[in-house]
Amino acid sequence: MNEDSGAAEGLFGGVFGRGGIGAETGDRAWLRALLDAEAALARAHARVGLIAPEHAAAITAACVPENFDADRLGADAAGAGNPVVPLVAELTRQVGGDAARRIHYGATSQDIMDTAAMLVSRRAGAVVAGRAASAGERLAELAAQHRTTVMAGRTLLQQALPTTFGAVAAGWLEGLETAAARLAEVLRHRAAAQLGGAAGTLASLGADGPAAAAAFAEEAGLAEPELPWHTERGRIADIAAALGRVCGAAGKPAGDIVLLAQTEVAEVEEFGGSGVGGSSTLPHKRNPIAAVSAAACAEQAPGLVSTLFAAQVQQHQRAAGAWHAEWPTLTRLLEAAGSAAAWLDTSLERLAVRPEAMRANLAASGGFPMAERVTADLADELGRARAHEQVGEACREAARTGDALAAVLAARLEGRRDRAAIDALLDPAGYLGSAPDLVDRALAARARRTGTRAPS
Amino acid sequence: MNEDSGAAEGLFGGVFGRGGIGAETGDRAWLRALLDAEAALARAHARVGLIAPEHAAAITAACVPENFDADRLGADAAGAGNPVVPLVAELTRQVGGDAARRIHYGATSQDIMDTAAMLVSRRAGAVVAGRAASAGERLAELAAQHRTTVMAGRTLLQQALPTTFGAVAAGWLEGLETAAARLAEVLRHRAAAQLGGAAGTLASLGADGPAAAAAFAEEAGLAEPELPWHTERGRIADIAAALGRVCGAAGKPAGDIVLLAQTEVAEVEEFGGSGVGGSSTLPHKRNPIAAVSAAACAEQAPGLVSTLFAAQVQQHQRAAGAWHAEWPTLTRLLEAAGSAAAWLDTSLERLAVRPEAMRANLAASGGFPMAERVTADLADELGRARAHEQVGEACREAARTGDALAAVLAARLEGRRDRAAIDALLDPAGYLGSAPDLVDRALAARARRTGTRAPS
Amino acid sequence: MNEDSGAAEGLFGGVFGRGGIGAETGDRAWLRALLDAEAALARAHARVGLIAPEHAAAITAACVPENFDADRLGADAAGAGNPVVPLVAELTRQVGGDAARRIHYGATSQDIMDTAAMLVSRRAGAVVAGRAASAGERLAELAAQHRTTVMAGRTLLQQALPTTFGAVAAGWLEGLETAAARLAEVLRHRAAAQLGGAAGTLASLGADGPAAAAAFAEEAGLAEPELPWHTERGRIADIAAALGRVCGAAGKPAGDIVLLAQTEVAEVEEFGGSGVGGSSTLPHKRNPIAAVSAAACAEQAPGLVSTLFAAQVQQHQRAAGAWHAEWPTLTRLLEAAGSAAAWLDTSLERLAVRPEAMRANLAASGGFPMAERVTADLADELGRARAHEQVGEACREAARTGDALAAVLAARLEGRRDRAAIDALLDPAGYLGSAPDLVDRALAARARRTGTRAPS
Amino acid sequence: MNEDSGAAEGLFGGVFGRGGIGAETGDRAWLRALLDAEAALARAHARVGLIAPEHAAAITAACVPENFDADRLGADAAGAGNPVVPLVAELTRQVGGDAARRIHYGATSQDIMDTAAMLVSRRAGAVVAGRAASAGERLAELAAQHRTTVMAGRTLLQQALPTTFGAVAAGWLEGLETAAARLAEVLRHRAAAQLGGAAGTLASLGADGPAAAAAFAEEAGLAEPELPWHTERGRIADIAAALGRVCGAAGKPAGDIVLLAQTEVAEVEEFGGSGVGGSSTLPHKRNPIAAVSAAACAEQAPGLVSTLFAAQVQQHQRAAGAWHAEWPTLTRLLEAAGSAAAWLDTSLERLAVRPEAMRANLAASGGFPMAERVTADLADELGRARAHEQVGEACREAARTGDALAAVLAARLEGRRDRAAIDALLDPAGYLGSAPDLVDRALAARARRTGTRAPS
Repeated sequence: MNEDSGAAEGLFGGVFGRGGIGAETGDRAWLRALLDAEAALARAHARVGLIAPEHAAAITAACVPENFDADRLGADAAGAGNPVVPLVAELTRQVGGDAARRIHYGATSQDIMDTAAMLVSRRAGAVVAGRAASAGERLAELAAQHRTTVMAGRTLLQQALPTTFGAVAAGWLEGLETAAARLAEVLRHRAAAQLGGAAGTLASLGADGPAAAAAFAEEAGLAEPELPWHTERGRIADIAAALGRVCGAAGKPAGDIVLLAQTEVAEVEEFGGSGVGGSSTLPHKRNPIAAVSAAACAEQAPGLVSTLFAAQVQQHQRAAGAWHAEWPTLTRLLEAAGSAAAWLDTSLERLAVRPEAMRANLAASGGFPMAERVTADLADELGRARAHEQVGEACREAARTGDALAAVLAARLEGRRDRAAIDALLDPAGYLGSAPDLVDRALAARARRTGTRAPS
Repeated sequence: MNEDSGAAEGLFGGVFGRGGIGAETGDRAWLRALLDAEAALARAHARVGLIAPEHAAAITAACVPENFDADRLGADAAGAGNPVVPLVAELTRQVGGDAARRIHYGATSQDIMDTAAMLVSRRAGAVVAGRAASAGERLAELAAQHRTTVMAGRTLLQQALPTTFGAVAAGWLEGLETAAARLAEVLRHRAAAQLGGAAGTLASLGADGPAAAAAFAEEAGLAEPELPWHTERGRIADIAAALGRVCGAAGKPAGDIVLLAQTEVAEVEEFGGSGVGGSSTLPHKRNPIAAVSAAACAEQAPGLVSTLFAAQVQQHQRAAGAWHAEWPTLTRLLEAAGSAAAWLDTSLERLAVRPEAMRANLAASGGFPMAERVTADLADELGRARAHEQVGEACREAARTGDALAAVLAARLEGRRDRAAIDALLDPAGYLGSAPDLVDRALAARARRTGTRAPS
Repeated sequence: MNEDSGAAEGLFGGVFGRGGIGAETGDRAWLRALLDAEAALARAHARVGLIAPEHAAAITAACVPENFDADRLGADAAGAGNPVVPLVAELTRQVGGDAARRIHYGATSQDIMDTAAMLVSRRAGAVVAGRAASAGERLAELAAQHRTTVMAGRTLLQQALPTTFGAVAAGWLEGLETAAARLAEVLRHRAAAQLGGAAGTLASLGADGPAAAAAFAEEAGLAEPELPWHTERGRIADIAAALGRVCGAAGKPAGDIVLLAQTEVAEVEEFGGSGVGGSSTLPHKRNPIAAVSAAACAEQAPGLVSTLFAAQVQQHQRAAGAWHAEWPTLTRLLEAAGSAAAWLDTSLERLAVRPEAMRANLAASGGFPMAERVTADLADELGRARAHEQVGEACREAARTGDALAAVLAARLEGRRDRAAIDALLDPAGYLGSAPDLVDRALAARARRTGTRAPS
Repeated sequence: MNEDSGAAEGLFGGVFGRGGIGAETGDRAWLRALLDAEAALARAHARVGLIAPEHAAAITAACVPENFDADRLGADAAGAGNPVVPLVAELTRQVGGDAARRIHYGATSQDIMDTAAMLVSRRAGAVVAGRAASAGERLAELAAQHRTTVMAGRTLLQQALPTTFGAVAAGWLEGLETAAARLAEVLRHRAAAQLGGAAGTLASLGADGPAAAAAFAEEAGLAEPELPWHTERGRIADIAAALGRVCGAAGKPAGDIVLLAQTEVAEVEEFGGSGVGGSSTLPHKRNPIAAVSAAACAEQAPGLVSTLFAAQVQQHQRAAGAWHAEWPTLTRLLEAAGSAAAWLDTSLERLAVRPEAMRANLAASGGFPMAERVTADLADELGRARAHEQVGEACREAARTGDALAAVLAARLEGRRDRAAIDALLDPAGYLGSAPDLVDRALAARARRTGTRAPS
């Protein structure tokens, strides 16, 4: 299922909150994560004996996002500079009684915000991973299917030598899955809970601090950090980089699809059904709108990554601004990565590949890409230098006269090579080098990663 | 009135949508701008005779944002990659009849999106300007009031020489107002309407194209561009830079306020009333939360600016991604600039200045900053080299012994300068250089800019 | 003359220090600027009577970059964190005598560094401007020459409607010259001298401070700032933005040239002579290497711009790092802008335009882009709805059968339009809209900017 | 040894090419890496039987950087857009004879450039790692030595609760070493050789392609990639991110040192010996110039990282610009990371810690940070609510009157707590929470990482 089931919201949500990512990055998702953090804290305290189990249960029971009003909390957040202060106040009101006094015990606002940010990253990251996995599956199929489908390899956007569409897809696959694997690794090992109290010393928890912090990480389902990381933001930067990598790895094939879908190239096409990729004024157009959208999402990443890398420098035990700047930036970056992966997945789902156009485009360039092969073939006989000279002259003649290179070579090499031999040398299908083998390598590597068998 | 009257929404709206900016950057504002663009187009066509005036009136009458559902349009936008296509469909449905067929006539989606982006920029930019103007007013007052309030000038965060708080405020003022002036200039001259049709040739409007484009700009209330600018995005980059400048110019004083409010410096303080700047666990704290929030907003700008600068490179007559990437990025940047200016304004409103702490901090460093003045005073008598040597030795002695520099100098210079003379030389108030004059210059420059009189 | 006369140095200088920019951004240029600043300071002091004219003359005479060793000064700069301290020491040694004691009088290191940065920006900026002007000239010629040269307008890299290559070139021209004009404006008004002394109060110059600062700006040939701007870095950000705009405005046509030069499009070609754009292994390739290099330079700008925008936030009266970070970043950005403009200029110099390929590519898409015109032509007769339906059906039939759209329409519209009429309607040259007029507008605007006459 | 032994060059080399990094990133280093790549290629070919061993030996013998002129190669690089083409031409000339014809066999320019970029990254990365390791050692010592040295923990730059300088240093240590470990991991696993030939198919090597590629990686001493990665740039992005992390992890303590060294805080000081950190005009100043320089280097990273992340999107089989843009950007980023680490190392070497100032600053804030502890102490007796109320009132009275909080509490709590008990409660040394334990954890983690024993 590739349709967008998540609650992407707003005027730009369809484009920039694609594939269910919006539901994991919006206010509701943040609210849920904040409340999950408070509930996990209460349960952790109960486990180490700091509060009564029934209080922890009461607090956990009250941590229901639907009972909180994001707009009002947000407005009240202006007072303390973060939404945890009003959230705790409201949660306290809702819980009431003795249990209410155990809420947020020993924690500072940043403990809850950071833990929530990690929960949001994990959950939204799972959506990113899911979309990337789906796209990876499609790419693996394309690579296998087009293992020997001849197409032009292009350097600086000029035809260079033949390759296969399978090899191209294998390269896209390797890039995307490597990026997704890194994201998974980062979210597993670096998405950690945060509990340090006001100055990162766990002071108000007394001797129970470290045990409570360990229990908190477990209850929150996050890694336990060596130290509180209030102002050691390498974890955020690692997540940012991993998301930026996914964006890049989705943006690369998206860009290539746009190029291959050009009117004059037409080697692939996005078939999106009615109302998709069409133009109201230009009925003949079939825009690769999914690839375009993937590119649009990916292009937002480098700037967002730079903001989060700059925010690594935070003052003393709590930063005066850089910490706050992370919230909307990380949120946007998660959306960008999820949407980029989802749009790429959609583009691949819609993709029609045109092997005949690939061959025709290569043929239209008249065999020149194969010239180096003719030279190599003649080198033993003529010596390398003379072979190079002869073939070079033939190329120039063909270019000048417009005659087919094969014909010119046949005439010039009369007695040495007949036309059939020359045609064989100029056949791109015979000069694919290791392209098919590279497909096999990529699929084998994928099988190792995913624990499945490569297609034989 | 400094309170936040705008409809800042969501969990982070109180912090990152401060001062009314949220109301001009949200979905409602975008929807309004898109509909304003369609309505202006219809009226423009009527003016040049392309459509009937009553059709233009009917279209204009239907362009009511409240009648449109942003979430649904957003979801449908995934089909064509932008929300104009479903918006036009829905507007057509709502208008009905003959007039409906005149909607969006001769325009391409990007014409409407770009024009709307410029309307949003103008309107949100006015909020930015308003907040900056308010902050500027406060800064001008501070500069005038503290024209001769002595404080330490600090380089690399070390006390260097005395200056005045008025001179410091004058520097903040000059920075902020220059940035705001540039933003106003850019929004006036560079915020242009867009009308070019599918390939930027105005083809479907026939010979009336240029006249319709001119009328459109007038109806939209935007500048008329020389050419369609579908893929010439210097205008967007100019707006981005101007917004990034405002963020920088707000972030600079915000950062200084945070530094001056440090516990150990305490030369200024934000008095925010109850519930503001406080800490739930640490009742003694008085956080400069407005300045911190201004910094948090400002720190998001450089990355967003870089995305919009990168997006200047757009392909052919309509970009495959870079154009789309502008929408959320420009929106976030407008919010960042508006919020940064609003938070700075709030910080200044709350600001309590402590001249006595300024003097005390300077005194605590023992007169060393004034040493170069004693040297200069003795130079004629002793020769510059010997004066420098004598004063240097005195400084070293004072540092070593902990004795007051004035006492050491009095002892060493016995007969040449008495203690009173030395105290006068070491009085920072006597070594302010042109600091007060610089305040006057800044206020005079401000008066020229605003057309008002500088305080005498 | 387009050849690279400047002393581009090093392994990457040929690519990234193109067009003479290297000579204005290297160590020698910085050294010259630093010494020019010291000399201007001495002369300014002499003008206001602070030092003797002969001392100023002696100092000026010693300010010869060739007499200083950049490597040694650079190594010594590690002590104070900037090269001014060792430079002043060495200059003092070289000048000797009484004049030596007047060097750097009343200035702080940042006064000299900032003034030098502005001199470097002005001088390197002049190279940027020169290259942009040359490229602009070529673009104006292309626009005029190809005013009516039909080509496909492309949106999302799909053929959309016809335009002319002249209109395309006019768009490139407008973008580049607007960016260059802004750079010139910024360098004229915002490149200011800096003189404030250690804390920005001009204290050690006594009452002569403001007069000396004014004279300094004049001697340095830079704008006089209202206030010292040691930590008000809007000027640097303005220059950064203007340079980033030039990069964007050069990167846009460079990107389009690369696309138009694709093997399958071949509407333009870079003819670079022997050894240029060739491939050692692939003799048939003709890479648009100048356009590629322009793109490579332009792509470095957004990140560098973001660093300089972030560096606007500087502490108190001298920043602890952000100021220093400007030096290499501004230097690289000047190089990027100069090289991008120079490479674009080279690309345009080499550019061969292929009108026949433009026509052929448009023809290959079978007249579909003109379908909307046929609809419009039939609308009066058939009613708009039926016309749309008829043409739509014809398009679908032509696409399905592969028959020419003209033939299908002729058959379907028998009696209403003959083949000749249909061919005329489908002729892209008849559907250029205002493209040629837009060329005229761009050239007229250019004539106003440059004070020359537009070609008639 | 902390002195700068590397050949940092140029006017800014002392500041931005610190600690030997310049020698591994300059032209000489690049030239060496390019030649090492060509030599490794020849030897690889010999190993798989593609060329004669003596030819490989001859080629290897000629790959001596000192025999090549970087300036001339750089100038010639403008022709093909990269320095490999002229380098191969010159190497061919120098080798001569039959061996010369075996140079660069089967390779494309990008194969050599990319392999060289990885060699440069590895070698420069080793310098970065070395500097980070040295700084880490110093931080571990500081953490151990100041395990219980009381200081103020600060949030939003306000004193919050006590912590220890050891805990602060442990946080810096954890950040820096985690970043360095990631860099090492990336350079080990992701720095791969590149061999693919013109279109990434290894076509001209025939069936020997994969074997030659494997041998090449081994000869070059780099990882063997699954596939050629000409346009799959995740490796470069991974390296960029790791370097950006080092910059952030060095910039964080550097920023804190600058804050702690402020005149009014004075808890640490950089003692740099004569000529270091001094000010020519202000003899009393002792600037933390090493920390400032570390910050200046670190601040350049986010923009450079963003450029390399944006450059992940490269077209087809060789990019038209994004690839080239990597060279100067990666070079600068390596320099920034190496210099940031080296300057931090220098700052720590120079660092004098002032425990008495730490205590005094905390004392000056009058015990307020300990108020929450008094509340907790009274809670059992009075009930939590009344305890909170009582202590709050005492705080307000002390703040209003200026009396010592201890005295006010003693008066108000007469009969419940005597002055000695109150003084004990207000002693920050008794409220360090887990700060010393966190030091132990950090040192134990370090011991695990480095395989050494934690100090007992």
